Amino acid sequence: MTRQELTEQIRKKKSYLCVGLDTDVTKIPPHLLSFSDPVFEFNRRIIDATRDYCVAYKINTAFYEAGGVKGWEAMERTANYISRDHFKIADAKRGDIGNTSSQYAKAFFETMAFDAITVAPYMGSDSVLPFLEYKDKWTILLGLTSNTGAADFELQPAGEGLLYEKVLRTARGWASPENLMFVVGATQPEWFENIRKLTPDYFYLVPGVGTQGGSLREISIKAMNKEVGLLVNVGRDIIFSSKGEDFAEAAGARARAYADEMSGYLK
Amino acid sequence: MTRQELTEQIRKKKSYLCVGLDTDVTKIPPHLLSFSDPVFEFNRRIIDATRDYCVAYKINTAFYEAGGVKGWEAMERTANYISRDHFKIADAKRGDIGNTSSQYAKAFFETMAFDAITVAPYMGSDSVLPFLEYKDKWTILLGLTSNTGAADFELQPAGEGLLYEKVLRTARGWASPENLMFVVGATQPEWFENIRKLTPDYFYLVPGVGTQGGSLREISIKAMNKEVGLLVNVGRDIIFSSKGEDFAEAAGARARAYADEMSGYLK
Repeated sequence: MTRQELTEQIRKKKSYLCVGLDTDVTKIPPHLLSFSDPVFEFNRRIIDATRDYCVAYKINTAFYEAGGVKGWEAMERTANYISRDHFKIADAKRGDIGNTSSQYAKAFFETMAFDAITVAPYMGSDSVLPFLEYKDKWTILLGLTSNTGAADFELQPAGEGLLYEKVLRTARGWASPENLMFVVGATQPEWFENIRKLTPDYFYLVPGVGTQGGSLREISIKAMNKEVGLLVNVGRDIIFSSKGEDFAEAAGARARAYADEMSGYLK
Repeated sequence: MTRQELTEQIRKKKSYLCVGLDTDVTKIPPHLLSFSDPVFEFNRRIIDATRDYCVAYKINTAFYEAGGVKGWEAMERTANYISRDHFKIADAKRGDIGNTSSQYAKAFFETMAFDAITVAPYMGSDSVLPFLEYKDKWTILLGLTSNTGAADFELQPAGEGLLYEKVLRTARGWASPENLMFVVGATQPEWFENIRKLTPDYFYLVPGVGTQGGSLREISIKAMNKEVGLLVNVGRDIIFSSKGEDFAEAAGARARAYADEMSGYLK
């Protein structure tokens, strides 16, 4: 999906919501456990109920890997189930030396048909470039994350600014906003104006709204650009909003509420 | 495997070699491709041929993920095949917010029975602690890596020193040398004396010897401590030393040559 197509989807649906499929098998409604692939059955129903209100789905690979081979199967089935009109993100936070990153790129962009993968910046350019070589796919590099541990390194002085600023400044030289995005956490909205100055045209994948407490309003006001430039991820607050047999309807209603709020912020 | 047990294995075998199972299916001998699981068949023969000369095996998850579900199966089978006397490392470079890192820890320490996993430091303490909570397992945190991209961030000024030094200084406060190690690349041997001063008692997993050009002699002299404190990984230079039907024998001979050289450096 190109940047233009993504923006068109956002304008059409009046939503920049990304639904996070952090499908913890211990948290899904018990009546699904009799299926041979409960994780996929859960995801399928969540996707059917939320598809009109979101433009993206984010699969958090950790929750699938915890299930071993069966979990990896559920991930592939889920990725295949998501329509081409939705932006498919593998939240995998990969990154390694060049020939290894190439294998990760192959795993998520070829073996599975994701549009995007999240990548960790620590190892530098040659750990990221193998992902960026896929011009029709997206690399979403960690900038400033939403967890408290961001204070340990990301928010520490590094040269002329903080480390996350150095990452943004360096990485914007690696690729254009046509196939590079950044992860910017919503729990630190006070940083968004500065981040937007550093990377005016890039899309951000914004975690931390919902259960983690970030404010959708604040980040929308501070970080939206003329192509919208935001994908706001909400995971648990949508997918686990009910634990009963109505879980999918409840998730749909919750996603709709987020989309309704977002439509008010779109210019 | 405890630190004491690991050091005992090293003393017994007079080797601190880790064999890197970066099993690229496009590089294995063609006669194996008729098996239903060529990657596992390759690994099994490599393990049988090298087990006496190494104390550890490192599975590079990228090469398995590139094969999708089949690849993940080959990884699980390989991990199960490695004996308990060998230290089993998942070179996965994972790291995410706390509840997600917990799922990765579950994947590699419970669903699969690895002794250790490599972890990326960028997101800070709460992204690493869920791995460290497994007291009988090992977290191997990226310190200074062997790739050229290390220059982009790891070797940049960050506070009083360079970023990788900050990572070492910070992380040594998170856990003792009993279940925390660091990745330190062999391609920058000039940094080893300094790194050993910062983390005198920790084990290092050292990639970059062999195909990447790092010197085994130099790093052994500069970085060995009284518990040895080194696991030197060699991947391609051992496992792909022959492409013929003799590939396993050739790998065994290559591993033996590394072990012979190592025995000379052990005090």
